[in-house]
Amino acid sequence: MDSLKGNFIIAQGGGPTAVINASLTGAVVEAFDKLDRSSQVWGAKDGITGLLNEAFIDLRNQPDGIWDKIRITPAAALGSCRKKLTEEDLTHAVEICRKYDIRYFIYIGGNDSMDTANKMSKTAQEMHYEMYAAGIPKTIDNDLPETDFCPGYGSCARYFAQATIDLGADIRALPTPISVMEVLGRNAGWVTAATMLARKKPDDAPHLIYVPEAPLSIEKFLYDVKEVYDRRGWVVVTISEGVCDEHGESLAASIGKAAVDGFGHALPGDVAPTLAQTINREFGLRARSEKPGLVARASSHHVSSVDREAAEGVGRFAAQHIFTGNTDFMAAIKRESNQPFKVSYFAVPLEKAANIERLLPRKYINKDKNNITDSFRKYVEPLIGGPLRHYTRLNY
Amino acid sequence: MDSLKGNFIIAQGGGPTAVINASLTGAVVEAFDKLDRSSQVWGAKDGITGLLNEAFIDLRNQPDGIWDKIRITPAAALGSCRKKLTEEDLTHAVEICRKYDIRYFIYIGGNDSMDTANKMSKTAQEMHYEMYAAGIPKTIDNDLPETDFCPGYGSCARYFAQATIDLGADIRALPTPISVMEVLGRNAGWVTAATMLARKKPDDAPHLIYVPEAPLSIEKFLYDVKEVYDRRGWVVVTISEGVCDEHGESLAASIGKAAVDGFGHALPGDVAPTLAQTINREFGLRARSEKPGLVARASSHHVSSVDREAAEGVGRFAAQHIFTGNTDFMAAIKRESNQPFKVSYFAVPLEKAANIERLLPRKYINKDKNNITDSFRKYVEPLIGGPLRHYTRLNY
Repeated sequence: MDSLKGNFIIAQGGGPTAVINASLTGAVVEAFDKLDRSSQVWGAKDGITGLLNEAFIDLRNQPDGIWDKIRITPAAALGSCRKKLTEEDLTHAVEICRKYDIRYFIYIGGNDSMDTANKMSKTAQEMHYEMYAAGIPKTIDNDLPETDFCPGYGSCARYFAQATIDLGADIRALPTPISVMEVLGRNAGWVTAATMLARKKPDDAPHLIYVPEAPLSIEKFLYDVKEVYDRRGWVVVTISEGVCDEHGESLAASIGKAAVDGFGHALPGDVAPTLAQTINREFGLRARSEKPGLVARASSHHVSSVDREAAEGVGRFAAQHIFTGNTDFMAAIKRESNQPFKVSYFAVPLEKAANIERLLPRKYINKDKNNITDSFRKYVEPLIGGPLRHYTRLNY
Repeated sequence: MDSLKGNFIIAQGGGPTAVINASLTGAVVEAFDKLDRSSQVWGAKDGITGLLNEAFIDLRNQPDGIWDKIRITPAAALGSCRKKLTEEDLTHAVEICRKYDIRYFIYIGGNDSMDTANKMSKTAQEMHYEMYAAGIPKTIDNDLPETDFCPGYGSCARYFAQATIDLGADIRALPTPISVMEVLGRNAGWVTAATMLARKKPDDAPHLIYVPEAPLSIEKFLYDVKEVYDRRGWVVVTISEGVCDEHGESLAASIGKAAVDGFGHALPGDVAPTLAQTINREFGLRARSEKPGLVARASSHHVSSVDREAAEGVGRFAAQHIFTGNTDFMAAIKRESNQPFKVSYFAVPLEKAANIERLLPRKYINKDKNNITDSFRKYVEPLIGGPLRHYTRLNY
């Protein structure tokens, strides 16, 4: 293939992951390879706002060997944003592209970013500006449709599954025998569901798993905790930050509804500490809460090799596909086999990916809505990229 | 040395660490080596309560090769407790020792456990029962006196320092530019202070560090956060869970003083979410909180090799020293040199270690009481057992 001409820009949107920079590296290295030397390869600083503000990062002009390091660096190397573009912004964005002769635009992100990429492409067509636009999926939430999984998910899943093993080892030996761990994921329970991988024997943590796809009442929660405590003497709960009650209200908010501080201000609170406090109060049992929060998605110590390779591969594919004249697509991952784990990449129309949330299927949630079924293991286990560290126990 | 006769029991007290089982292994393997085959080597199940309840774990009768695995397993392999013994308990405990011909008692733990070991020894003397008692220091809090550091501290320090780097990388690239991370440590700020190791350049996280040794008002906290935000555009705060205001009241409680839920119950809350909410409310800035909690002290992925080796070494020393006829001592660590890092072990009378909390010295806290001075690096850096993972940034 002859060298292509045309300037290239890539951006990162939404919350970062531990492997989003692998996707960036995959796409950028491909751009270096396929575009002629006169074509610019830019990063937009802080997501799409960097395009609007003409804040471009010159990706050609970086220290030697930097991409080998950026590839394994968590968080968004270009910076990120959470901006929804107005009609006016979209027109402006395309005008900026015209001004700088930007012919290729790739957005690495989640649902909102796919929506932005889609609208950029449509607006360019309406404005008769020839431009290719594509998306690369990225989200720990794993909630983009069409793709088998979203890069970033496997590493975050690995983090929380290992944290559940670690926490379980600690809690099991303690006189404070209850802990509620809050897990990332507002609407989708994919990450929380992955904590089931911590369990090798029936007695292992986690004993209860709550995902946002199943509404939960505080009464049911307390009943479940008491039941496990009475039976096992210790309880580790994993719960998605976004779990809601039957009325769709966040569980934390619904418990602390009238909670106000000394100044009369509302105190919404996080779900795990709120639930731990409720256990303390209702049962007089010592309960704690843990919330690794963003540490979980930024930890390079828990990156899944499968996740990182797919992140890079899908990034490379997106650039290859855009450079062969395709537009308006999201690069996606197809699982070819589990043993050995193999994937291939393909393109789906952006409109099939934008603004659609893929939730955890009902079949993976047990009947009692407080755990994840064993059938989920087949889906998730290969994505965490190798065995977790399970610990040895003395015989007694 | 001829083989010794006499039964041996070892227990683990208080909150576990990632390396407490290395101390257990060091002492137990030494017991196997020095005691004759007719002498029992027991673990007390769940700390001193296992002695009182005659719940003994037969440590000789374990699968082959298990100690190589237990050595690297976080959390308390024997189980733990937080029991303070009454006079009656102490008499009972010594009677149990007499009943089972237990001549050697070692307690691995923090201040309370050293106190228990000390009282056991004194009570045995009063009861004219010949028995040797010793303590092995263990606490992430690093607050035992006499020893250069407490096993468990270096690994927990390593965890939080790396978590601060990871969180910093994430937050720096985000439109939610403030995070408050809650760090383990109720009264002593040693672990929180170690997050200073995350900072290589002045702009790096953490920007503000608060330890319990320096009282903090909410007004001062808000002033500091705003100042850093205005100057840098992003803020990562690390704060000990136990930070108090000028009146000695926990900061979380003092803010949410009149906080009650819908049922009129007090909601004490954790310090980090309470502070993040206060930033949101006072400045209209998005702020988050993270609280790795027990995950931090149970993580085998962040174990410091220096910490683990010292944990095992001090455990082995305690057993060697007790078997040569010494009693009433805590095994302790002396730092011989920093380059290369070398330690030796020695014994201190238990009463010099029991019930004394070694707080972070004032010299390590900056004048403005919102950071840790560079001089602390020399103390803490060798303890984390090797460089942290610092990340590469693109040039822009």
